[in-house]
Parts: sequence; structure tokens; C-alpha cells
Amino acid sequence: MTAPASLSAQEVAARIGASFGKQAFMATLGAKLLRVAPGEVDIELPVSPHLCQQHGFVHAGAVSSIADSACGYAALTTMPGGAGILTAEFKINLLAPAAGERLIARGKVIKAGRTLTLAMAEVFAEAKGVSKLCALMTATCMTIAGRDGVSD
Amino acid sequence: MTAPASLSAQEVAARIGASFGKQAFMATLGAKLLRVAPGEVDIELPVSPHLCQQHGFVHAGAVSSIADSACGYAALTTMPGGAGILTAEFKINLLAPAAGERLIARGKVIKAGRTLTLAMAEVFAEAKGVSKLCALMTATCMTIAGRDGVSD
Amino acid sequence: MTAPASLSAQEVAARIGASFGKQAFMATLGAKLLRVAPGEVDIELPVSPHLCQQHGFVHAGAVSSIADSACGYAALTTMPGGAGILTAEFKINLLAPAAGERLIARGKVIKAGRTLTLAMAEVFAEAKGVSKLCALMTATCMTIAGRDGVSD
Amino acid sequence: MTAPASLSAQEVAARIGASFGKQAFMATLGAKLLRVAPGEVDIELPVSPHLCQQHGFVHAGAVSSIADSACGYAALTTMPGGAGILTAEFKINLLAPAAGERLIARGKVIKAGRTLTLAMAEVFAEAKGVSKLCALMTATCMTIAGRDGVSD
Repeated sequence: MTAPASLSAQEVAARIGASFGKQAFMATLGAKLLRVAPGEVDIELPVSPHLCQQHGFVHAGAVSSIADSACGYAALTTMPGGAGILTAEFKINLLAPAAGERLIARGKVIKAGRTLTLAMAEVFAEAKGVSKLCALMTATCMTIAGRDGVSD
Repeated sequence: MTAPASLSAQEVAARIGASFGKQAFMATLGAKLLRVAPGEVDIELPVSPHLCQQHGFVHAGAVSSIADSACGYAALTTMPGGAGILTAEFKINLLAPAAGERLIARGKVIKAGRTLTLAMAEVFAEAKGVSKLCALMTATCMTIAGRDGVSD
Repeated sequence: MTAPASLSAQEVAARIGASFGKQAFMATLGAKLLRVAPGEVDIELPVSPHLCQQHGFVHAGAVSSIADSACGYAALTTMPGGAGILTAEFKINLLAPAAGERLIARGKVIKAGRTLTLAMAEVFAEAKGVSKLCALMTATCMTIAGRDGVSD
Repeated sequence: MTAPASLSAQEVAARIGASFGKQAFMATLGAKLLRVAPGEVDIELPVSPHLCQQHGFVHAGAVSSIADSACGYAALTTMPGGAGILTAEFKINLLAPAAGERLIARGKVIKAGRTLTLAMAEVFAEAKGVSKLCALMTATCMTIAGRDGVSD
């Protein structure tokens, strides 16, 4: 997979970094952008009590949040400059308790289209040096062009 | 839909309230439990900058978080005392920007089963007295019995 | 919900009927178009051994097929003349064995958009006069304009 | 991934073959079991007019049918003898028209659990020697033990 013709790898990384920096919700979670490559974005989330549900695991909604951003930004790496991105839908299967020291969401593009792009994210829970798949998301991302306020 | 035989309506409401109170992530979001009825739970989320994505809308992950809790607690109203609940999977379709003064997630049980319960949540965005459907979730919730630390 | 400005209710019904008639797969299943209304389409499928899986229930794929067509045609009732429709994605939850005399898929539009329309279908299994919800689908349908061979 | 302790690879293949042979709907479609390995099952579907929708592509429901069976049988390869399998839910993203000479659904287990198993299937459309990903499914399969008539 290659970056859009008009943007260099550095420009793509800068674009994703700038947009991620504007996602206040990622700061609320404590999530960090870990890696950007053509068609791939990884996001890290340290496990913390303020993210947990009633059994002490990270809430499925917090897991979904980093998986959704990883999918969306993976998709954005393939989109032309000036376009914005919105998630149309996603599904997540929760496979194991999200616990340990940190979660890593690894997003990648499955198929990039002009209007719709399918991305997938695997979320791994890392505990004591062991990494375990705890969730799997598929997300449909929509390219938005020419709408005020929706540009990335 | 009726509450489990062994629990009165008051006991069900107390059970949901106690479990919701332990979801630290709901406090992080600023979400409040609005209504509990047999098979139905509503959760309110005031829109706030700390929840937003890069275009100023509430992040799809935050929308999903209240929808997931609304589905899960709607399902829990139908479960026997002592059982715990986990989400096995959910899918959410995002229909309109989540913006305005507040979001309301209305969860309800579609079919309660012994092991798996299907619930649905509609999320409405309220702005200037107008309420608009902004997301729709279906969630599969799993009844957990006899596992340490997973009881609600 | 109203039909597209340019088409009368009769024209919408004729349009759906003509497109359904071209779905050879519906004939293979034995499915019939039962009802067309603005934003709503019902499809009937008599239960038959040629549709079954290994336990004697109707295969989840056959259930999905009528639910998908019910969603797609419900969405098509809201689209401008000349446009074609494709399903971008769907999710189905299977709630009870699909058995009895016949299945009815009731599709309806949740939100009609210019490019994407969300529809939902409930599938009921009818046995000895009792109707039971056996599946629930949400589907994202895409309006296709100006592509050769994709017009409905 | 290994086959259940009590079954040899040959026994697993025989088990899947016997169950597939009882799926009358697979014969209605014209689908064939192509390959069985621990945690993996491939199903082939020759493209034929009786499977098509109104634009001449294979109907999304037919695509889903082989993907669902590929997921379910991939999951069954990991289950103990005597258990039966049912699909609880699946989601499919349709990425390109399902056309050409034949479709191949490649199912594989993502995580096998005692009660729930997540499987994924990629569906490829083969035309003139070129294979193209046309659909992606994730499916939650449920292990059924001790229910009359549900054994595979």
C-alpha cells in the first residue's frame, strides 16, 4: 500500500500526528500515537483505574476508542490531502479481559476505496511481557471532501 | 419483560446503580445513570470538550461507551442475582455527528437468553430542544456465573 | 418517511417489484416480495429442506439473504429514480432456530442519507400460528449513481 | 492450533465432511468443501446465474452463506467430539462485486473459547486467474453441548 501521490511519508505522518493531537478524547484516555506507516497506525493506551469498568478491566468503550482511532488513522494515511475522515460503523469482538500494563491497538487498511475504506484493528493487552489479543475490530471509514470543518 | 424472580424492581435498580457506580470510566466521561426499568436502561452524557475528536464532535468511542453500558445494564436487569455480565461483541452505526448539549443512550433488551442476551441502544444527540438519532448499537452480552471478580 | 419526490407510491412499488424479479437468487430460495411501503419492505420465505443446515434449521445464510434484500429494498424506496443500490456491510444476530412454516423478514429504513442509508430487518419464524423473532440485522446500503449496470 | 485431543486430524476432517454433507443449503448453492485443517476451512462456490442479484453479481446472502459455513466449520475443528455448533452473530463487509468464475471463502479461527469462538472468513472472487478479496466476515460461533439434535 502506498501513501497518496501528493503526500510524502513524512507529510502523512505529520498529518496523522496533527489530527491525533486535536482528538482531546485521546488525551482524556491517556492514549499515545505509537507508529504511522502507509495503511497502518498503532496507538498505545496505558492501563489506568480511570478507564476501568466494574470488574477492574478496561471498559469496552475505551478499548473501542483506541481501536476506532487506529482504524480511522490507518485509513487516513491512504486519503488525498484535504479530505476528512469519519467512521460510518464498526464492530468489535471482545475476546479477553483488557488488563495488564498497557493496550496496543494495531490498525491496518483492508481495502481503500474512493468513498469507503475498510480497516481492521487488533487490540493486544500486554502484561508482564506477554502480549495477548483481547479485541478485534472492523470499521468502515468514509472519506469526506468539501464539508466545512471536516478536514484532516 | 419482567425482572428476575428473585429481585424486586427496587433491588434491580439498586444493583444497576451500584455496578454503574463502580465503572470509573463513566465518571471519566461524565456520564450519569438516568433511568432503570425492566429490560431498559438510559445513560446521559453531557457534551464536553474532553470527549471530542478532531472535528469537535463527541468521539465515536465515547458514544460507544455509553451505548455499551446502556446495553449491558439493560441486559443485567434480566439476569439472576449474583451473575456478572460481559460484552462479547457490539456493532455501532454512526448516523450523524454527536454534538449539541448532551447525548442520551437508550438501551433495551431484544432477547434475553440463559447465556447470551441481545440488547440494542439508540443514542440521541440533543441540541436546542431537538433530539436526533446519532447512533445505533446492537450488543451481545454474556451472563457470567461462578467466576471470581465478575459479579454484578 | 416519504417516497422520492419524483416517484409515486405505485412507481416505487413497481420499481422494487421489477428489481426483486431480477434477483434470481430469491427464486432459488423460494422467497416472495410480500409488501412495499415507503421505507419498508417485507419478504417471505417458506421453510423448505433445500434451505437447511445440518440440524434441520434454515441456514443462517438463507436467513441473511432475505434480511439483506428486505433492508436493501427498504432503502431503495427512499432513493431517487435511476440510482442503484449495493450493500456495504451488514451484521446479523441469530436469536432462535429458524424453523416452522415460513420466515418473514421485515426491513425498514432507520436513516436515509445521500450516500449511505442504514436499514434494519427483523426476521420472524412462524410455526403453528406463533411468530417468533429469530434474527435481527442492521445493514448499511450505498446509493450508486452513474455506474453502468448498477441501476434499480 | 491443534485439533481436540480426542480427535485425530483424519477424524476432524471426516467430522466436518459429514456435517457439511448434511447442509442441504450448500448443495442448493453448489458449494463444495475444499480444505479442512486445524482451525481452518475453505469452501468453494462456482459463480452461477441462480445465485445472482439484480446486477448480475452473486447475492450478498450467498456470499455470506459460504463465509458463515467456513467460519463455523473452522470453529468446529477446535471443538470436542459430540458438541454441536451454532452461529450467534456475524458481520460481513462487502468490498467488491462478487463476480468471476468462482468464489473461495477461507475461514479461520481467531480465538477458540469454551463457549464462544471467534472466526474470520475472507472471500475471494477469482476471475481469469486473478483473485480479489470481495468480502470479509467475523463470526461468533457457539459450542452447544447436550442439546438434542444439535451435534456435529
